[in-house]
Amino acid sequence: MSEVKIIEIKKSIFEGNNRKAAVLRDELKRRGCFLLNIMSSPGSGKTTAISAIAERLRGRYKIGVIEADIESDVDAAALNEQGVDAVQLHTGGMCHMDADMMKEGLDKLGRDYDLIILENIGNLVCPADFDLGAVINLVMLSVPEGHDKPLKYPGIFEISDALVISKIDVLPYFRFDMDKLRESVLANNGDIKIFSVSAVTGEGMDAFCGWLEEQIDRWKNS
Amino acid sequence: MSEVKIIEIKKSIFEGNNRKAAVLRDELKRRGCFLLNIMSSPGSGKTTAISAIAERLRGRYKIGVIEADIESDVDAAALNEQGVDAVQLHTGGMCHMDADMMKEGLDKLGRDYDLIILENIGNLVCPADFDLGAVINLVMLSVPEGHDKPLKYPGIFEISDALVISKIDVLPYFRFDMDKLRESVLANNGDIKIFSVSAVTGEGMDAFCGWLEEQIDRWKNS
Repeated sequence: MSEVKIIEIKKSIFEGNNRKAAVLRDELKRRGCFLLNIMSSPGSGKTTAISAIAERLRGRYKIGVIEADIESDVDAAALNEQGVDAVQLHTGGMCHMDADMMKEGLDKLGRDYDLIILENIGNLVCPADFDLGAVINLVMLSVPEGHDKPLKYPGIFEISDALVISKIDVLPYFRFDMDKLRESVLANNGDIKIFSVSAVTGEGMDAFCGWLEEQIDRWKNS
Repeated sequence: MSEVKIIEIKKSIFEGNNRKAAVLRDELKRRGCFLLNIMSSPGSGKTTAISAIAERLRGRYKIGVIEADIESDVDAAALNEQGVDAVQLHTGGMCHMDADMMKEGLDKLGRDYDLIILENIGNLVCPADFDLGAVINLVMLSVPEGHDKPLKYPGIFEISDALVISKIDVLPYFRFDMDKLRESVLANNGDIKIFSVSAVTGEGMDAFCGWLEEQIDRWKNS
């Protein structure tokens, strides 16, 4: 298959997805349902962070979680055990969520939520290309992954509204340069909001959740 | 675009890639050039491991490294500084290497090597689908990522000849169950060879490099 043909196919897939995501965004707005899309590498701490967010905000919002994985139900099961409503989606080998799968997840979860959190597939590349109708796109980067990741995977840091640096409790054991990270992220996305958290010690989680509440309230009143 | 159409396109891409990889594998065999394909999530320690392998095996083999990234030259530059021949490939947004890009990298590196190491794009999903003509496909998983990754990203653990568990120096700071990891990997791939290493302390690197030498010698004599 020629490169031109592949580019044409990709363009057609992205355009189709964007149209569907726009429809989804309107529908979620009508329902008063705020969608947060969390993206990261595998093992950056997405599930643990979602659990910590749910713990802090469940008094204020009816929270539902959509867990996307290629296989396995361990994440949804762990959240359910904690009393958080979560459904599991299997992408069947696909390396990202798209608007069709997002709709499927929303239908599976049901309508009774005002904050829906999507845990996207663990991947710093492909999810950046697919609008899912989320109000906030969030990228998480854990300290053990290293501060150079925005140089190598720039796309996802450019399209995100927030960056959450996770696992800061292990900072003493890694050569992680917070200033270099901030500098390289802000160079390509001056509007991104940056948080540092540890879901283990709880550090930074209140500040992040406070900001998220502000975003939800502003969106509801817009 | 219909799902059937997408599946047809994917099938055609995979088949075309497999044909090209087979040609590449034959050519590398004729040249006596052993190709090792290293895959992992972003930030698992691929570059550091390659640097440690080069340090140990450079006396015995002429080693060349191909660094694949979406953007940036930091990895190739770091290896060059250490005196290791390395070239950088930019995939321009692509989330994996394919046989065409592999050929481009091999041409760029030149013919004068008997061990070529590819650092694939940091991604636990897509690289599993693309044969590159390598003799050994290796997946690396770092301790901070967690022992549950083979449940969620099974494909890459199924197609790999070796699993290298990296960053074992930080085991005390993470809840990482080595037995559970081994069990879930071996359940789907009984032939995989498992190593535990720390590039920081050097632990396990000699055992891994000894095994790699055996593979190279066996292949040269086959």
